[in-house]
Amino acid sequence: MFAKNFSVYRSITKQFVNLPAKKLAVKGYRSIPCPLFAQNRHYAQSASQDKLIIFDTSLRDGEQSPGVTFSSDEKLEIARHLSNLGVDVIEAGFPIASQGDFDAVARIAKEVGPLMHGREKIGKPMIIAGLSRATQKDIKRCYEAVSLAPLHRIHTFLATSDIHLNYKLKIDRNECIKRATSAVAYAKSLCDDVEFSSEDSGRTDKDFLCQVLGKVIEAGATTLNIPDTVGYTSPKEYGALIKYLIENTPGSHKVIWSTHCHNDLGLATANTLSGITNGARQVEVTINGIGERAGNTSLEEVVMNIHTHPSSYPVYHTINTQLIYRTSTLVSSLSGMVVQPNKAIVGANAFLHESGIHQDGVLKKKETYEIMRPEDVGIFSTNLVLGKLSGRNAFRSRLEQLGYFDMNEDDLNKAFDRFKALADAKKHVTDHDLLALIADHVSSGSESKFDLQSIQVISGTREMVTATVKLKDSSQEQELIGAAVGRNGPIMAVFSAIQQLVQRKIRLLDYEVRSVSEGMDALGKVVVKITEDVDYSISETDSNPQEHIIDRAIKPIVDSKGETKLSKSTYHGHGTDVDIVMASAKAYVNAINRLFTSELSGISRSSLEERQANI
Amino acid sequence: MFAKNFSVYRSITKQFVNLPAKKLAVKGYRSIPCPLFAQNRHYAQSASQDKLIIFDTSLRDGEQSPGVTFSSDEKLEIARHLSNLGVDVIEAGFPIASQGDFDAVARIAKEVGPLMHGREKIGKPMIIAGLSRATQKDIKRCYEAVSLAPLHRIHTFLATSDIHLNYKLKIDRNECIKRATSAVAYAKSLCDDVEFSSEDSGRTDKDFLCQVLGKVIEAGATTLNIPDTVGYTSPKEYGALIKYLIENTPGSHKVIWSTHCHNDLGLATANTLSGITNGARQVEVTINGIGERAGNTSLEEVVMNIHTHPSSYPVYHTINTQLIYRTSTLVSSLSGMVVQPNKAIVGANAFLHESGIHQDGVLKKKETYEIMRPEDVGIFSTNLVLGKLSGRNAFRSRLEQLGYFDMNEDDLNKAFDRFKALADAKKHVTDHDLLALIADHVSSGSESKFDLQSIQVISGTREMVTATVKLKDSSQEQELIGAAVGRNGPIMAVFSAIQQLVQRKIRLLDYEVRSVSEGMDALGKVVVKITEDVDYSISETDSNPQEHIIDRAIKPIVDSKGETKLSKSTYHGHGTDVDIVMASAKAYVNAINRLFTSELSGISRSSLEERQANI
Repeated sequence: MFAKNFSVYRSITKQFVNLPAKKLAVKGYRSIPCPLFAQNRHYAQSASQDKLIIFDTSLRDGEQSPGVTFSSDEKLEIARHLSNLGVDVIEAGFPIASQGDFDAVARIAKEVGPLMHGREKIGKPMIIAGLSRATQKDIKRCYEAVSLAPLHRIHTFLATSDIHLNYKLKIDRNECIKRATSAVAYAKSLCDDVEFSSEDSGRTDKDFLCQVLGKVIEAGATTLNIPDTVGYTSPKEYGALIKYLIENTPGSHKVIWSTHCHNDLGLATANTLSGITNGARQVEVTINGIGERAGNTSLEEVVMNIHTHPSSYPVYHTINTQLIYRTSTLVSSLSGMVVQPNKAIVGANAFLHESGIHQDGVLKKKETYEIMRPEDVGIFSTNLVLGKLSGRNAFRSRLEQLGYFDMNEDDLNKAFDRFKALADAKKHVTDHDLLALIADHVSSGSESKFDLQSIQVISGTREMVTATVKLKDSSQEQELIGAAVGRNGPIMAVFSAIQQLVQRKIRLLDYEVRSVSEGMDALGKVVVKITEDVDYSISETDSNPQEHIIDRAIKPIVDSKGETKLSKSTYHGHGTDVDIVMASAKAYVNAINRLFTSELSGISRSSLEERQANI
Repeated sequence: MFAKNFSVYRSITKQFVNLPAKKLAVKGYRSIPCPLFAQNRHYAQSASQDKLIIFDTSLRDGEQSPGVTFSSDEKLEIARHLSNLGVDVIEAGFPIASQGDFDAVARIAKEVGPLMHGREKIGKPMIIAGLSRATQKDIKRCYEAVSLAPLHRIHTFLATSDIHLNYKLKIDRNECIKRATSAVAYAKSLCDDVEFSSEDSGRTDKDFLCQVLGKVIEAGATTLNIPDTVGYTSPKEYGALIKYLIENTPGSHKVIWSTHCHNDLGLATANTLSGITNGARQVEVTINGIGERAGNTSLEEVVMNIHTHPSSYPVYHTINTQLIYRTSTLVSSLSGMVVQPNKAIVGANAFLHESGIHQDGVLKKKETYEIMRPEDVGIFSTNLVLGKLSGRNAFRSRLEQLGYFDMNEDDLNKAFDRFKALADAKKHVTDHDLLALIADHVSSGSESKFDLQSIQVISGTREMVTATVKLKDSSQEQELIGAAVGRNGPIMAVFSAIQQLVQRKIRLLDYEVRSVSEGMDALGKVVVKITEDVDYSISETDSNPQEHIIDRAIKPIVDSKGETKLSKSTYHGHGTDVDIVMASAKAYVNAINRLFTSELSGISRSSLEERQANI
């Protein structure tokens, strides 16, 4: 039945946007057992294996990484790639947190929610989930955003540990159960697909946890998520916890159990796999393992473990592994979070051997050394190159192969113009160049306040570098031109000039350039991190600092209404160009735009409590 | 007895260098049970716990990372830090591989082998190990190098899987046992401390493996290492293998069992911990998890798991965890292998919270959220800053606190001069700046062929950037000056000028800049990767490439003697300066120096087989 319903999605995708979403949502969707997946068992290894639900939270928990703020356009682009990759559920954001968060979730629900591209074998579109605290107001707001998608989920959470109940919420255990069940019941009245997370479950009394979760199942929850909030448990402990909960929670067979692990001790992947072995059928993950502190479980590591050991786990997955690498590249680009060369699966060295087995003519059986082929995750040793004379069609078809399958004509034209300009400066335009070009394009969208028009740098010796910068302030339709002298090279001169023009005290926290591809004419990709300078304790003109303490502890900010805010204190920006001075200017302006957008749209979180979703 | 012997090391450190090393080596040193450790149990959690031996192979397996080549000075510096950190055994290199490798191992044995700084509580210096194939020639060469240290070990290996025996070694199982036992017996005749690794143990018939290992124990091996060569196993499987081998190998109680895991599926730490739980008492690890492909097990992750769960594992460790962060920084600097922000323990974000728990005045019990304190691994939120007027004593004492405890006067003077120059350009010199400065100093040592004297860049518009570079060729006591015009900004102009001067065809594979600290006047650290251009299939002057295939497969090189070589095909270089154009020039020259040094000293590996230590 489900399969029939969903097989026509492809052709009617566009129409869905204007249909009332609630009607389209699948009643009582649950994965085990599920006739839909039974009909799509080409991925499955054996009939006894269950479908593993991949729940990606790159846009919610991933965005909680220090310094990472995605624009709405960027979130949409990532969501589109995740849909194409075969992700089952995306946590698109935390709609109550701000108007900006709400709008982004709603946009993803509307525009990505119906997409069937690349999901033909899965047979249904991605479920769009939103996070909400356990209050009616939060849940309603969440529902308003996610319900624009044909398949949607409300994810609500409440702390269950005594320390949280006593110190933070100041309620007793009975009140905790009451709040959790009434939140889930309310969510259920809006939406069939309801997930509940017990915040700080690791420190919750196990029997009380079973009690809460049992009541929550009665109230209608369909997925129960057990976060290892502080990344503290070992695979054995975490697996035992999942097993205990499944065995001791009343009605546990009616729901999907879910893992949510953090990587503080380097064990997130192992803990997640141990959860699966012990009965979990959903895993909460992020691309490249981004997230707070040492991050979340990596989607790519969990998926490739199951992929390379198909008979060792009681599950199969429906991820198109060949799209992993390019999705990783996109998320790394847009988040500014670099992937180290020795990162499993997606690091630059992951498939490079130094020790020369491949060169050895004697030992032919190379595949016996390789547990995965680079092609399995979409890394190809040969690289199709475009040049100056490549036409629009070659360009479009290359982009489609890289996952940009639904670009509109306007965006395609703009991207093609950028490509042409690049091909003038750079002989061979590789896939890496194209991916960087598009990432730049996505990030310099309509939401930007400032548009970089041109820069000019005159540098003689180090002491006398002069930079002139022209910006357009799109909010006031005004051109700004300014110049500055830099003491430490051309880039700092350009940054100083921009800072003068935007009239803010900006402090540069981090600056990074990477070449996108090889060669002297390689594109340079610059990532900067900035913060407003208000709290910095040493004045820049302090001429005799001697020994001094810099205190970088982040402090809460009180806004004009007297409310304590937890706005993002740092912003990243990225920019790409063959000239790294120009790329640096783009990145700096991009970061400043994020700062302004954040303030204008209220993306800065509006109260203390909202941001305490430590799940 | 041991404790008495070693407690005097501190005072007589220098004398050891000239003593016959064999006499100093501890006869029959073994860790379980060991009176030495019994007397130093301040680290131990309970009397029933065994000492875990931390075996660091950053300099051997870590150096097999693509593009990583350490100079002899760099290896020495890393070894010194590892000794101070409390590492029990260091694998300093593969002495037979080349003269350069031999010299580096010998130098570490002689200069770091006797050091007791920071090891007072451990009570003995670090064991210096070298790798060798299972041949007399290899083992003898290895012994010549490591025996210069008071405590030393020969680590020999042989493949045991049928696929290796049949295809690579072309020997049968009996011959395999014969070679393994005679190698170990020969090693034992030279040195009491002998480690044997069974290469490709994961695919070896288990009962045959027990048989080989039993014979090797009879021949005198004291440590048996079980590599998960291709990073394929799960924690459960790897633990079960260790358990099986310990239970079924004749004489297994006489030796220390050791883990050696790779991170291809993100499970190296979990596998290593599972090995410990199942009886292993040595772990082979690297700083930051560097190594081939996705790397080796991270020292810091294993140690901090045991540290935060002192009663969950049957072992205790004697690492000074407060030195972890600075050792990580040093290895990242010298290897050019960046650590991603969301890396467990040592990533820049590992201890940063975005979600504002720390700001919450309500929930005071912050430590209940933190499983580790940043201070535990040596990350301090306050940062002591030096400035222009800081004196030599302040500088020296800061360096000592950063782990540079034994700098000689000459090096200290040079470093102080560099510091003064930096303090002229940069107001506040932080610990990060100092660490970068010293890393640069270590890497531009006496082994360098070219010394960068000065650069001058005139850039008007993009099309007309002119760079002039002055190099000193120290091998010929000659000054070289040249200029070039760069099309893509000042850095490429400088690189072109340098390339002309060194008269080699260099291809830039990767280029990266990171700011070392915050602010507009931050130091920029540049890392480049280069290769010689001989194999590149598209000529740089190709004017009409259209669509083109770039084949980057690495090919073997036949040298002048007709021998097939597997020289490092790529070289990294790093450089630091407040001006990133200057930093780039330093990094480029540094990489070119590595290429020349590698050729001159024969660091390029001399045959196929040597580099096939896939353990």
